[in-house]
Amino acid sequence: MPDTPPQPSDRPSLEKLTGGIVDSYQAGLRAEHIDATFLPSRDAAISVLGLVHELVFPGFIGEQKLTSDSLLDHVSTIVAQVRESLEQQIDAALRYSRNLESDGKGDDCQQCTLLARRIADEFLAAVPALRQRLALDVQAAYDGDPACRNTDEAIFCYPGVYAIFVHRVAHELFLRDVPLIPRIMNEHAHSKTGIDIHPGAQIGESFFIDHGTGVVVGETSVIGNRVKLYQGVTLGGKADALSRSARGTKRHPTIEDDVVIYANATLLGGDTIVGAGSIIGGGVFLTNSVPPGHFVYNKTQELKYRSAEKLKALEAQAAEQQ
Amino acid sequence: MPDTPPQPSDRPSLEKLTGGIVDSYQAGLRAEHIDATFLPSRDAAISVLGLVHELVFPGFIGEQKLTSDSLLDHVSTIVAQVRESLEQQIDAALRYSRNLESDGKGDDCQQCTLLARRIADEFLAAVPALRQRLALDVQAAYDGDPACRNTDEAIFCYPGVYAIFVHRVAHELFLRDVPLIPRIMNEHAHSKTGIDIHPGAQIGESFFIDHGTGVVVGETSVIGNRVKLYQGVTLGGKADALSRSARGTKRHPTIEDDVVIYANATLLGGDTIVGAGSIIGGGVFLTNSVPPGHFVYNKTQELKYRSAEKLKALEAQAAEQQ
Amino acid sequence: MPDTPPQPSDRPSLEKLTGGIVDSYQAGLRAEHIDATFLPSRDAAISVLGLVHELVFPGFIGEQKLTSDSLLDHVSTIVAQVRESLEQQIDAALRYSRNLESDGKGDDCQQCTLLARRIADEFLAAVPALRQRLALDVQAAYDGDPACRNTDEAIFCYPGVYAIFVHRVAHELFLRDVPLIPRIMNEHAHSKTGIDIHPGAQIGESFFIDHGTGVVVGETSVIGNRVKLYQGVTLGGKADALSRSARGTKRHPTIEDDVVIYANATLLGGDTIVGAGSIIGGGVFLTNSVPPGHFVYNKTQELKYRSAEKLKALEAQAAEQQ
Repeated sequence: MPDTPPQPSDRPSLEKLTGGIVDSYQAGLRAEHIDATFLPSRDAAISVLGLVHELVFPGFIGEQKLTSDSLLDHVSTIVAQVRESLEQQIDAALRYSRNLESDGKGDDCQQCTLLARRIADEFLAAVPALRQRLALDVQAAYDGDPACRNTDEAIFCYPGVYAIFVHRVAHELFLRDVPLIPRIMNEHAHSKTGIDIHPGAQIGESFFIDHGTGVVVGETSVIGNRVKLYQGVTLGGKADALSRSARGTKRHPTIEDDVVIYANATLLGGDTIVGAGSIIGGGVFLTNSVPPGHFVYNKTQELKYRSAEKLKALEAQAAEQQ
Repeated sequence: MPDTPPQPSDRPSLEKLTGGIVDSYQAGLRAEHIDATFLPSRDAAISVLGLVHELVFPGFIGEQKLTSDSLLDHVSTIVAQVRESLEQQIDAALRYSRNLESDGKGDDCQQCTLLARRIADEFLAAVPALRQRLALDVQAAYDGDPACRNTDEAIFCYPGVYAIFVHRVAHELFLRDVPLIPRIMNEHAHSKTGIDIHPGAQIGESFFIDHGTGVVVGETSVIGNRVKLYQGVTLGGKADALSRSARGTKRHPTIEDDVVIYANATLLGGDTIVGAGSIIGGGVFLTNSVPPGHFVYNKTQELKYRSAEKLKALEAQAAEQQ
Repeated sequence: MPDTPPQPSDRPSLEKLTGGIVDSYQAGLRAEHIDATFLPSRDAAISVLGLVHELVFPGFIGEQKLTSDSLLDHVSTIVAQVRESLEQQIDAALRYSRNLESDGKGDDCQQCTLLARRIADEFLAAVPALRQRLALDVQAAYDGDPACRNTDEAIFCYPGVYAIFVHRVAHELFLRDVPLIPRIMNEHAHSKTGIDIHPGAQIGESFFIDHGTGVVVGETSVIGNRVKLYQGVTLGGKADALSRSARGTKRHPTIEDDVVIYANATLLGGDTIVGAGSIIGGGVFLTNSVPPGHFVYNKTQELKYRSAEKLKALEAQAAEQQ
């Protein structure tokens, strides 16, 4: 600490500090969003996700003790909320995106509102089908983990089930070209679960990720039915597909039906195809295709064992030589 | 965007959207919980955890500036809250579990309430012992990380300390056969820390996980005293123990006293025992036992080095051949 | 469940349960903070971070629809809030730290308040420069990920952008020897993103971490400009630098300009230097230096492939032998 502490009179004024910051907004760093009329709200997008979670797994999430009598009113209220908020957010995202592309035309985009409305309606009409797919995912979690007591536990506790729920919701919006919102949703799931699935990834039925922390599924991945991944699995791009020029190409692997990929395996490349029924062992690093029905694993690593006595002797020897 | 935007009159009615969703609830997908009288609440279980955190580390978490004078009242209030809420949640979990097993008998389960009360009381009576164990864990964090300034920093900031706190709480409830709630608690910790410890795992004194993201400790793991794990360590099941038929068997490793396991090592199998005082090197993949007092590490990987000039020459050559 | 359920009269009294816990506070386990006048608040530190986030990326985070007219008032309000709260928290942290060192002297530390004031002011005066650095980081995220649509998406969704934002804020406070608060901030980011950067790490311009879960950057790491890391990369200490005696030494690697480190590579040791422009392949385990302009990768692992037929035959054979 300094010998002579600063005197209060040294303090910069609030105006000066504020002025410095506001000036920096005008320096054109792009990292600001002032006088922009439309931008979707991260909080609102995540709230919609919470309401949809409640619609999809009624009685588990949100209001408990639902009865058959109260159900219709309860669901109707949530559907109305989702419809309104989702329409608003999609509208904002579409107008925002138009403004980025064509300098201000988004502000008058009547079509954006109509399109947003249609997408929100289509999404809500798709919820029953979504529930059917998610019931298969929940069953896959139960079947795939001997520690799982019942399917309710999978819904209640399993990060892999939450991640695939969010992905299936976000993917619906991604397919309808909604900007930003799908990514906000998936990054929310990533933050909560450590599972990072790009909303563009195509994922089949009965999908299960166990534990999940560190899983990365890239934008152009294609995954079949009944696939199971463990923690730390990467479906990624090869080094030469990790710059902007690769945008729009298929950069991530294809995984066929009934494949299991064990913990921390890394599979890279858009041409890499894992054939149906194959198994990829833990820690495998793979950049080529695998035919169907094969088990691929690392040649057993050569481990070295050294006893404590040996270690002590080596240390003593090293100390002498110094 | 379409040339002819959809007209508002196209919109499906709220009734129709709601009806579609409610119908799907009656299709028997199991992923609903309607007319179920009892289900523990995830939010309530996590709130209890927060209150217990405050009891265990008073002055750090929750109300600050506790004085000796105000202490008794403050603690008494929290104890009363934990007792009431924990009893309610355990009661709900027991009745819920009975309903799953025997179709409706949980609703009249007077015994459930009495048992819940007893477990809540036992848990609160165990808090002083819990504090003693956690004080050893905090000390282990300080001793084990040279970047740690003092034990307070470990309590305040270390995800590994938070994870073992939650685990020790959840394990108390797991030992008393409380359904669902222990898993809800551990998955809450997993979400916050990236450390996934099953509530069934048996963990000795002075346990420390540094960094922690990606750690997985399976249900039947047994860990001795003074064990230290780094980020990404898996104590998991072998491939043949990852289906439902393996339920109830010992599927995960045993780690004896004073073992250190470095980052991203994977240890698999219920018969795998790491002997006391042994050290497992980073990235080791182990499915066999290690005798006491040994250091196990990968034979140094053969790395390839290629200079930028060489890379450029190869690229040019490849381009010519096209 | 027991045959004879416990009777309500068995219950321990609230006084007894409370007494047991309060007694344990007096047992000197250090894991309590009673009668301590000063301790920074985790919640308050994280709130400050939220306000600074809003200052740095106006219009994205917090209040939306900012106009040029409302801007000055809005920013001025936030600056005043940050100034007050940051000063309070730094003051508490300084006094707390003094109390730890010299038993009670922090309570009268007038200098602490003056120093806290100065640091809060310096921090706010540094925000424009911070914005400039972060704009480069945002650009690096956009340039480095072909899936990224625009720089706004990077600000909105990318955990790597959030992690470097928090790190640059925390590092400013770390450089001014503020106790505890920088670590609280970085562990908050770690919890949200799975990216664990110690506030002491020195990180150059245009830094990007993609996906990020499982990344660990140790306290004494030094990172140059335009460096890119992928998920699961560790810049850590060697085993012999992981005990308390190593405190204060350089324990973590140095990464020079324009280096790319692919997923799950582990680099250890304070003497390990990766030369400018080098590339470290996925999964590489490195404890030695790399000259500039080199690509380092694992010798291709020998993989074993076994067909389903072969597996079945082996299983049948094993079954016969039993």
